[in-house]
Amino acid sequence: MDERRSKIFRVRKGDTIGTDKGILRVDDVIGKEWGSEVRLSTGAKAYLLKPTPVDFTMRGFRRVTQVIYPKDSSLMVTLSGIGYGSRVLESGIGTGFLTAILAHVVGDAGHVYAYEIREEFARVALRNLSMMGLAERVTVKVRDIKQGIDEEGLDAAFLDLPDPWEVLKLLPGSLKPSSPVLVFVPSVNQVIKTLAWLKKGPYVDVRVYENILREYQPVPEALRPQTISVTHTGYIVFARLVRKTEDLPT
Amino acid sequence: MDERRSKIFRVRKGDTIGTDKGILRVDDVIGKEWGSEVRLSTGAKAYLLKPTPVDFTMRGFRRVTQVIYPKDSSLMVTLSGIGYGSRVLESGIGTGFLTAILAHVVGDAGHVYAYEIREEFARVALRNLSMMGLAERVTVKVRDIKQGIDEEGLDAAFLDLPDPWEVLKLLPGSLKPSSPVLVFVPSVNQVIKTLAWLKKGPYVDVRVYENILREYQPVPEALRPQTISVTHTGYIVFARLVRKTEDLPT
Amino acid sequence: MDERRSKIFRVRKGDTIGTDKGILRVDDVIGKEWGSEVRLSTGAKAYLLKPTPVDFTMRGFRRVTQVIYPKDSSLMVTLSGIGYGSRVLESGIGTGFLTAILAHVVGDAGHVYAYEIREEFARVALRNLSMMGLAERVTVKVRDIKQGIDEEGLDAAFLDLPDPWEVLKLLPGSLKPSSPVLVFVPSVNQVIKTLAWLKKGPYVDVRVYENILREYQPVPEALRPQTISVTHTGYIVFARLVRKTEDLPT
Amino acid sequence: MDERRSKIFRVRKGDTIGTDKGILRVDDVIGKEWGSEVRLSTGAKAYLLKPTPVDFTMRGFRRVTQVIYPKDSSLMVTLSGIGYGSRVLESGIGTGFLTAILAHVVGDAGHVYAYEIREEFARVALRNLSMMGLAERVTVKVRDIKQGIDEEGLDAAFLDLPDPWEVLKLLPGSLKPSSPVLVFVPSVNQVIKTLAWLKKGPYVDVRVYENILREYQPVPEALRPQTISVTHTGYIVFARLVRKTEDLPT
Repeated sequence: MDERRSKIFRVRKGDTIGTDKGILRVDDVIGKEWGSEVRLSTGAKAYLLKPTPVDFTMRGFRRVTQVIYPKDSSLMVTLSGIGYGSRVLESGIGTGFLTAILAHVVGDAGHVYAYEIREEFARVALRNLSMMGLAERVTVKVRDIKQGIDEEGLDAAFLDLPDPWEVLKLLPGSLKPSSPVLVFVPSVNQVIKTLAWLKKGPYVDVRVYENILREYQPVPEALRPQTISVTHTGYIVFARLVRKTEDLPT
Repeated sequence: MDERRSKIFRVRKGDTIGTDKGILRVDDVIGKEWGSEVRLSTGAKAYLLKPTPVDFTMRGFRRVTQVIYPKDSSLMVTLSGIGYGSRVLESGIGTGFLTAILAHVVGDAGHVYAYEIREEFARVALRNLSMMGLAERVTVKVRDIKQGIDEEGLDAAFLDLPDPWEVLKLLPGSLKPSSPVLVFVPSVNQVIKTLAWLKKGPYVDVRVYENILREYQPVPEALRPQTISVTHTGYIVFARLVRKTEDLPT
Repeated sequence: MDERRSKIFRVRKGDTIGTDKGILRVDDVIGKEWGSEVRLSTGAKAYLLKPTPVDFTMRGFRRVTQVIYPKDSSLMVTLSGIGYGSRVLESGIGTGFLTAILAHVVGDAGHVYAYEIREEFARVALRNLSMMGLAERVTVKVRDIKQGIDEEGLDAAFLDLPDPWEVLKLLPGSLKPSSPVLVFVPSVNQVIKTLAWLKKGPYVDVRVYENILREYQPVPEALRPQTISVTHTGYIVFARLVRKTEDLPT
Repeated sequence: MDERRSKIFRVRKGDTIGTDKGILRVDDVIGKEWGSEVRLSTGAKAYLLKPTPVDFTMRGFRRVTQVIYPKDSSLMVTLSGIGYGSRVLESGIGTGFLTAILAHVVGDAGHVYAYEIREEFARVALRNLSMMGLAERVTVKVRDIKQGIDEEGLDAAFLDLPDPWEVLKLLPGSLKPSSPVLVFVPSVNQVIKTLAWLKKGPYVDVRVYENILREYQPVPEALRPQTISVTHTGYIVFARLVRKTEDLPT
């Protein structure tokens, strides 16, 4: 089975789902366990798979912006050290790809505070998150984050906007000291500007990563990477907020 | 501050910590908040950072085997869809890098069942996990997993051993159908054998990934990737266990 | 100017060349020096560039097969050490991309002996090479190279066919000892089979390379790699033919 | 045989060559053909390989600077379109890695004009080139190229110095219009500055490349990329010199 042939759908009695391999009668899957085999109208086999957060975002989400792919969101989340119960900042929300992973990780005991300047993006992202049952873990504020951050004592910040350095200035009041900040930017010019600002500000442990993901054709007789694929998404800048003291003049 | 200059240590009154920038008196940090600035004997500044799981594994763990780096463990965890409360299988435990990330993600409501054939590895890994306070979330069984898996109804399996195909045969009784299986192997020959077995067995949605992580020197005036670094760790094979019916002879 | 907007054309009086930026009257370029600026019908500027071998192959060649891109052909040629006057073997010719680079490098004092089983490919490749004025440096033999190689004392062999190990067996009579052999194959399975055969045969100095070329958008204000591009072409296997003596039984 | 065990040496009667596998008596190889098998003092086998230009640079050259590796020099040469008889500019010469490849390609009918500000580098590079018998194809000028270029009508320019934009200004008088310019720089900041200058100057067809070369362990039973290796050398910027006319004011 090819992953690109999987479909995410809501189970509604009487519905049919069209695929290039045949039609699925939704009634045929009702009451079936996850992992079960079902037959399409053509006799082709299909399997009932419980969607993971990655399935939801990659195959179920409506996209209105460039997205943060799992190769990047996974590394950002792991580097940040967040987990069950964490309270995190996100700006902006975009299509909600990263938000979904964050909301999954912080669980029902944590929360994601997401600032998004474009109302349309906020609306689509919330609808995407609702499909996953995660909307209650996310508060979306439709406004320019540069006007101020309402929250205090947050555990990490995830910045995916064109000028993250503007937000870096605002974090000291909102983030617990020692907390990680993860910045995602597409161009090296933005990396350079972010680094320059981090150097001047109350940040340490600065690192820059780029994840080049290669997917292989899963054919045991002719294993090889895909011929054409995504070759660039963006750079990840990591830093930690600290309390720097001013050097006194001698 | 250079991340490679950070140290993980246990706070004990009267201790001193030597670094190449000067000596830290542990008494100076007692009672200080995370993120605080302290001075070394030379006057050099240092900062108190709360260790993340990645910090613990990369800088605090004693290593006895090849390890699974965050670039790979993060993608494996995210693809698996596990979260707070998940019950997962791991084989083998090695130095415990992946185990630490898994135990962090499943939280105190989940559990990691880890099989490890080498007693020394199990002992070191458990000591590493204890340092993080995660040992109670992990059950380590010192034996060959090929003799059988005790658990049932697990949510995901993470296989990091030389012949993962031997374990793939055993998973149907232990893993919930639809659950993801993540295999990590260093050579393409192992990928080929894993794929060949997955094709014959009750698995679908098979994919192969390779993550090439590049770290950049975080210097805004001369941004460039590191000159010499890790160029290969291993390949990640993803699949999902399903219930396949046998085709009846026509 | 965007390289993807360049066109290769034969200068014929009275012709016009259509582009998405306007029409070029060929009469306007006759008599002009290389590098000159000309105007299209819309007033847009264009420049007369003397085509390089890469320009000819990438923009002028008719393609009938998968091709060997400059990123791979350049490394193969440099590793082979061939130069002006070299006599080299190629199998198969395909669309002639590699052949063109080889014929350019060996110059008018060298020669390329190319075996190609498919007559259509041979015909297209020769027409492509004629456009560059290189057809006289290449002898194309339309037949299965496995039936035997006519030439002797060649300086290097370039193999781009599905089962290069079959040709490796035939090289000792045709290649000067110490000469390099360059194999290009798309899958890891083919690399494994090639390596297994090289190990048994009269070859030493075996190496395997993969060249991952990233092209950046040449925008100084927003420098970043292209988003979608070629992520895999093939693997390059290098080896050298030697005279191995049989070990006498003790 | 492992390529890293090969040695380049001058044949002198009576000499011995020490290796980690045993001692080679040079008298044993005198009169032997290329590709022949010889025995070391331990009985281990060795083979006589005729050095390629890459062998000379990688294994024979004394290094005094960062070098341009074959993965980069090969692509630069192929993109430039130079060949037998070309007259090319290089600045600076460094250790002579690129110079050697250029001198090999232009043959005895072409020439390399190399500017190098550091006398020591010029001296070492010339000694390296002499070992290959290529010194006569290269004129080295020990002076700052920014003081002016003596040559006219050159076919291509290869720039490997910290501020290539300073040289870009000087090329119009020395390079034939339509000729390619190849710039090699280690940091993205230098790429950005080069692009900014190219945009303002008489250059078109601008492109930026990065070649990520992966070498695999050539073991058919366990094929995998090398674990630790060079992860970054530099970026290649390509452009072509043209005659731009000034836009007249309307």
